[in-house]
This record gives sequence, structure tokens and C-alpha cells, in this order.
Amino acid sequence: MSESNSVLIGRKPVMNYVLACITFFHGGAKEVSVKARGRAITRAIDVVEVVRRRFLPDVKVTKIGIGTDQISPREEGSGPTNVSTIEITLER
Amino acid sequence: MSESNSVLIGRKPVMNYVLACITFFHGGAKEVSVKARGRAITRAIDVVEVVRRRFLPDVKVTKIGIGTDQISPREEGSGPTNVSTIEITLER
Repeated sequence: MSESNSVLIGRKPVMNYVLACITFFHGGAKEVSVKARGRAITRAIDVVEVVRRRFLPDVKVTKIGIGTDQISPREEGSGPTNVSTIEITLER
Repeated sequence: MSESNSVLIGRKPVMNYVLACITFFHGGAKEVSVKARGRAITRAIDVVEVVRRRFLPDVKVTKIGIGTDQISPREEGSGPTNVSTIEITLER
């Protein structure tokens, strides 16, 4: 999949990311990948649910993958931190 | 799937739910379902990642489903609220 069809979820309101997904699909994308980690994971699922329930009912969730990323410590002396990740693939 | 093999994620520490999953598998369960909604979704994924990466490497994630629940309003006059849900199926 092309990296340009990825929506990385951060701290902005859900609708910002919903619009990003819709823009990809309206631009002709067949597949959009929604990625998040840590506390943004909940928002990623909110985004996907709003996209497919309110705006694009023909979009299906075709794959959901979860994993773990290791983050380098912010302070010296502490070990790396693990953070959970999710990647949700949408197709129309 | 039997309801007794469900772990519903709430606000307790991640390790509480990890232990609940491990207890099911040690009791002979072949399949355990981890469910969460709203902000607990992130914790559900943390639980699954800790179970399979640290404790039970032979456990696989076989299914991840997401959805939306409607919650009745707490105050009269306001409409129902939508909350995202996740259900992760683990099998060994």
C-alpha cells in the first residue's frame, strides 16, 4: 500500500481525521490505512466508525492489526517504553 | 463462544486483566475474548500485547472486531451518545 494513503491519528479532534479519510476516498483511493498508537488508539476507532457509519457506508474494514512499538527513553538511565499500536485498513 | 471466557476491560491496572486472561488459558480455555469500549480500548490492546508477548507466546490474535454502542443519555433532553467498542479474540 502507498504510504500516501495513511492517516496517522494524533491529538486533534476526530472530525479532522474523518475528513482526511474522506478526502482520500473522494480522490479515488481504494484503500486507506488509519494508524495510531498509545492513547490515540481509541480515537482511531472513533474515526473509522464515523467514516463508515455516517459518511461512507460502502467502506469496509478489511484488516485490523495490533502491535507494540518500543520508544527510546526520554531521560538517561530509564529503559525503553513499550506502546501499543493499531493499524486499521479501510477499503471501498 | 461461551460468555464465561470474556474479559471485560475497565479502569483497573493492565496486569489485573492480563492475569484474568492467563487464568482462563491455564484453566484449559482454547479461546478468550477481550472486550472494551471508549477509553478502555487502548488498555485492551495493552492487555493483549502483554499476554502474548510476555506470558503466552503461543496465543494468537485470531479476530479483531470494532463497532459502536449507543448509550442512553445521563440527563433528560440530551440525545444518546455513541461509544466505540472493540472485541479481540485470542486462541491458543
